Amino acid sequence: MSHVGRNTPQIATNFQGDAPCLMAQRNTRFGGLLTAQGLNKQPVDVTLIDRRNFHLFQPLLYQVATGALSPANIASPLRSILRKQRNSRVVLGEVTGFELDTHQVRLKDGSDVPFDTLIVATGSTHHYFGNDKWAELAPGLKSIENATEIRRRVLSAFERAERETDPTERARLLTFVVVGGGPTGVEMAGAIRELALHTMRYDFRSIDPATAQVIIVEGQNRVLAAFHERLSQKATESLGKMGVQVRLACHVIDIQSDHVMVKPDAGKGDPQRIETATVMWAAGVKANPLGKMIATAIGGVEVDRAGRVVVNPDCTVGNRSDVFVIGDLASQKGADGKPLPGLAPVAMQQGEYVADLISRRLRGEAPRGPFKYWDKGNMATIGKAKAVAETQGIRFSGFLAWLAWLFVHIMYLARFENRMMVLFQWFWSYVTGNRTARLITGEKAEHP
Amino acid sequence: MSHVGRNTPQIATNFQGDAPCLMAQRNTRFGGLLTAQGLNKQPVDVTLIDRRNFHLFQPLLYQVATGALSPANIASPLRSILRKQRNSRVVLGEVTGFELDTHQVRLKDGSDVPFDTLIVATGSTHHYFGNDKWAELAPGLKSIENATEIRRRVLSAFERAERETDPTERARLLTFVVVGGGPTGVEMAGAIRELALHTMRYDFRSIDPATAQVIIVEGQNRVLAAFHERLSQKATESLGKMGVQVRLACHVIDIQSDHVMVKPDAGKGDPQRIETATVMWAAGVKANPLGKMIATAIGGVEVDRAGRVVVNPDCTVGNRSDVFVIGDLASQKGADGKPLPGLAPVAMQQGEYVADLISRRLRGEAPRGPFKYWDKGNMATIGKAKAVAETQGIRFSGFLAWLAWLFVHIMYLARFENRMMVLFQWFWSYVTGNRTARLITGEKAEHP
Repeated sequence: MSHVGRNTPQIATNFQGDAPCLMAQRNTRFGGLLTAQGLNKQPVDVTLIDRRNFHLFQPLLYQVATGALSPANIASPLRSILRKQRNSRVVLGEVTGFELDTHQVRLKDGSDVPFDTLIVATGSTHHYFGNDKWAELAPGLKSIENATEIRRRVLSAFERAERETDPTERARLLTFVVVGGGPTGVEMAGAIRELALHTMRYDFRSIDPATAQVIIVEGQNRVLAAFHERLSQKATESLGKMGVQVRLACHVIDIQSDHVMVKPDAGKGDPQRIETATVMWAAGVKANPLGKMIATAIGGVEVDRAGRVVVNPDCTVGNRSDVFVIGDLASQKGADGKPLPGLAPVAMQQGEYVADLISRRLRGEAPRGPFKYWDKGNMATIGKAKAVAETQGIRFSGFLAWLAWLFVHIMYLARFENRMMVLFQWFWSYVTGNRTARLITGEKAEHP
Repeated sequence: MSHVGRNTPQIATNFQGDAPCLMAQRNTRFGGLLTAQGLNKQPVDVTLIDRRNFHLFQPLLYQVATGALSPANIASPLRSILRKQRNSRVVLGEVTGFELDTHQVRLKDGSDVPFDTLIVATGSTHHYFGNDKWAELAPGLKSIENATEIRRRVLSAFERAERETDPTERARLLTFVVVGGGPTGVEMAGAIRELALHTMRYDFRSIDPATAQVIIVEGQNRVLAAFHERLSQKATESLGKMGVQVRLACHVIDIQSDHVMVKPDAGKGDPQRIETATVMWAAGVKANPLGKMIATAIGGVEVDRAGRVVVNPDCTVGNRSDVFVIGDLASQKGADGKPLPGLAPVAMQQGEYVADLISRRLRGEAPRGPFKYWDKGNMATIGKAKAVAETQGIRFSGFLAWLAWLFVHIMYLARFENRMMVLFQWFWSYVTGNRTARLITGEKAEHP
């Protein structure tokens, strides 16, 4: 369940006959890792290729960005996860192309990795809708580096405000704009307000952090559009109580280092200028370019507007029964005829499905039918003891939803030690309001 | 006691009459922070100036560099530490000069901070003995960025070795050179061997991490030269058992990206070439340049070879009773006539002393006499259940010294939550051998 899902699998996986090979690019997200783990003890060799050496639990990245958790609390080394799975090997590398005829995957360093079966699960990246120069001004939240950079920007804005004497400039520094009102945007906005209201309440002498403005700019006419309308309403109320401003049906048309221009939907008014020094991007994702690349390599395969590969009901692609695409990189229709959402549970279930399908093939058995997604629901947290959740037609909000959110997110963390560390920090933060990881770090931090 | 001390205070502090002002540069280390805290509830205004927004517990940085702890576990936001001390304010900024006549401190952004009393405690930085180009090839261990960069280099070397097929190149990648056999060097070397032997034991498929070579190059004829000779011997034995090679009486004469040249002391042989891809610097420190600057500003003040300011017995400088220099930035003789070591306990005791002296001045009382350092001892850990310690003439090693080391380092951590987090991770690592923070991060990590 949950938008534990909104950030999804980013794995390319491949297997090689008796010596299969599974590969990932960027972070080995849920889909690819689950496939690899599902093939444990099968008579195959699994190669997992990833640009990073860890599995990252993206749904909690916003807590790193707001100083509540450390990166290592939500990341687990891939080698550590797979160390006892003797049929697996991890390759740290970047996939740059596919040689399907010769059953090879090309890596950036020029080397080739052979495969019999290939699973591509490299997920999604930020989508600035053609305005790529916004990336520098409004970072998104996909990697650890994104999160520590946003943390640096948010904390530095308060620091600069504390030293600023001009009230206009101070107000600008204390205004934070979050573009996008999905789960990431809502959680990020809520967390910044909490940071200002509670964590840093007594920290400053010249400014009152509670005056910090947090504004969500959302193109649709409600936040959490994937949720039931009643929960969107609840979320908007909770955000309002916390002091987060929500601007609905409003599009960002320009981002500069000192302001953002937004334009309400047609007929609702003129473009407006928001004075701000800190903008975060939580508005859109597009598929990793490897999606397009594999579609082209196979030929005759459709790619949707977001760059996702249209896959067969069993997650294979085109006429290739030896190539699978899963997770955010795949476009597949659910039982209701609508496209499956870009959520981790989809990727995880696809990963398990593909591992099972390959195991059956190895035993000479027929597949168990097309992939079916079991929708466990959605959830998003807004602030301390505030969340919304829906599952199997049941909708709830407030403290109970928040507890459910905590439980689910703890359970989804990859390792016991991370669960303990996160639990302790959440408990501590709940009791004291403190967030222990409020560090301004990075190369720019050394020379402020 | 303890080399909890070896990395010391880096604070410039100043006070302003009824409105004193205390300032720090780079990390507010032990000395400056203790001075500020010692002035709590005194009728003064304290301004603490620091380049970073956190207090860093440097003695555990090597555990960040080897993936055992996260940066936030050993760092505490300065504002958080001082939030309830209402006579204090924290300024995030870099000091670039002193205007002693007008009682001003100049910051990099051009603004001035006034003071009545100034305490400078900006500590020390790496000393490459004139070979500053080595800094890039052999990073030291003073900042969080240093630690995560060394972590990236060490972990990447294992990753590259796993993919390397040439045995010579593979051996080079699996050779780690630590320059300097003081506590930092010994602890770093031991931690890398532990990482290879225990933590990553089952992680790889092509290489055996246990074949990783760790070499300490030390200029003197024993490691831990500040300790009793018997403990140096014990430490060398422990290092040998763990498989760390120690080269004594040996100087580094060149560092390149693929090797290090070392030269044994005169008459002991020709220069030798060590093939290595990863070098760490733990050999020397020099005072922050602000030491020289404040000495020049006052005039007629001596600065020693390491750039430390020779201070009066009460930690004032020259003829200025309103300017103090403490910690690593100060050169002061102990009761035995020898210079006080560059250790945190010296800085902390000086900080407490100066806070007390200022408080007495405010009450019109005479100072309690010159500063006296109480030497509590030294300790260094070598590996799991292996350490050496000496205090008040008592020397011990092995498990007991290791427990003492754990206890002292936990107690020195600034905040309860950090103690809990570090304790849990040490416990977990002791039981499972795992180190949870083995992340390859940073800008270079995104594009391997």
